[in-house]
Amino acid sequence: MKTLPAEIERGSMAIIAAELRERGIMLPPENAAVVMRCIHASADFDYAENLRFTPGAVEAAVEALRRGAEIVTDTNMALAGISRPGLGKLGGAAYCFMADEEIARAAKERGTTRAAAAMDHAAAHHPGAILAVGNAPTALFRIVEKIGAGLRPALVIGVPVGFVNVVESKERILAVCTEYGVPAIVALGRKGGSSIAAAICNALIYTAAEMLDPKERG
Amino acid sequence: MKTLPAEIERGSMAIIAAELRERGIMLPPENAAVVMRCIHASADFDYAENLRFTPGAVEAAVEALRRGAEIVTDTNMALAGISRPGLGKLGGAAYCFMADEEIARAAKERGTTRAAAAMDHAAAHHPGAILAVGNAPTALFRIVEKIGAGLRPALVIGVPVGFVNVVESKERILAVCTEYGVPAIVALGRKGGSSIAAAICNALIYTAAEMLDPKERG
Repeated sequence: MKTLPAEIERGSMAIIAAELRERGIMLPPENAAVVMRCIHASADFDYAENLRFTPGAVEAAVEALRRGAEIVTDTNMALAGISRPGLGKLGGAAYCFMADEEIARAAKERGTTRAAAAMDHAAAHHPGAILAVGNAPTALFRIVEKIGAGLRPALVIGVPVGFVNVVESKERILAVCTEYGVPAIVALGRKGGSSIAAAICNALIYTAAEMLDPKERG
Repeated sequence: MKTLPAEIERGSMAIIAAELRERGIMLPPENAAVVMRCIHASADFDYAENLRFTPGAVEAAVEALRRGAEIVTDTNMALAGISRPGLGKLGGAAYCFMADEEIARAAKERGTTRAAAAMDHAAAHHPGAILAVGNAPTALFRIVEKIGAGLRPALVIGVPVGFVNVVESKERILAVCTEYGVPAIVALGRKGGSSIAAAICNALIYTAAEMLDPKERG
């Protein structure tokens, strides 16, 4: 039985690649690492179909990470899943402001969600960051407004999961990012979540850091 | 647009219930909260089909949580996703030992994975805990051994995701838990992950704490 994490990861990726071939799915090479890591994190081949990339999004994000770009995410679960060794190697950092008292207070004062208030904070204090949204449609809608007002994040990852406002929020962010030339990776439809947000971040981090198999897995 | 977290959650659950009806799926009432929260966390209706419960597993777990049972999980992502207000209300706590130096050292000494060493630690120091495995098949295989040697966890949640050893580990833990009368909730097949492990924990916690909509969501 394979038990070494590196062996298991190689084995998993080989199985995913073989099943993609069987399904007749050809991934554009520049997007393959991201798509495969989403399938790896979910065992759900829908991610071979529902992910959308603005042109050059992966290249732009990898370059940003190599320059030490920060990541701001809307869930502490995604934050916990983002590879620290990888980000550390690149000189980057990752943040989630959802549990901050200051954000809770700001949300209450402005009559908005914590997720939207967290993105206000990110726009003000981390304007060139990668914004990774795995949970809250209101975070994506707030990013849409901010881009209209001039914000230029290094990348928007739009992968909230759910049944209410989710599909619309992802279509909207993709349209706006396309219009304004902001790199974006979006999972159209209902699917996504914190583990998908983390998987996309990690695929980009591993590519940027030229790491093969950094994650412990037993 | 609905933006209040409680409103969104109610709306989501109503959509999930309606789509289950459309698909002709009748969930056993005692398992419905767990199944629906897994679908809520993934937007993947496969969880209406792949989850297996040993008889009385939900009731046993809810009673254990009401007595203050602890949760030990094999990923920091799942740990980050488990409802702290809910657990706090019940007097419980949640732990993940994967990042502990002591566990890394023990794994190295014994030539095993960190996940297996983390379960050794859980068996020794938290023997009546709920063991929630969202990532590592080797953690499940180690729990199988421990149950054979007399360990009686309050519940085993077996939902690792992946392509190598995963399916086998879940079939094995379900068989062993059934044989020894240990409550278990298992997602057969490849699917699962940290967000599913957390979703199952939270469904049980909310039921035990009689909470309706504790989670912030924007």
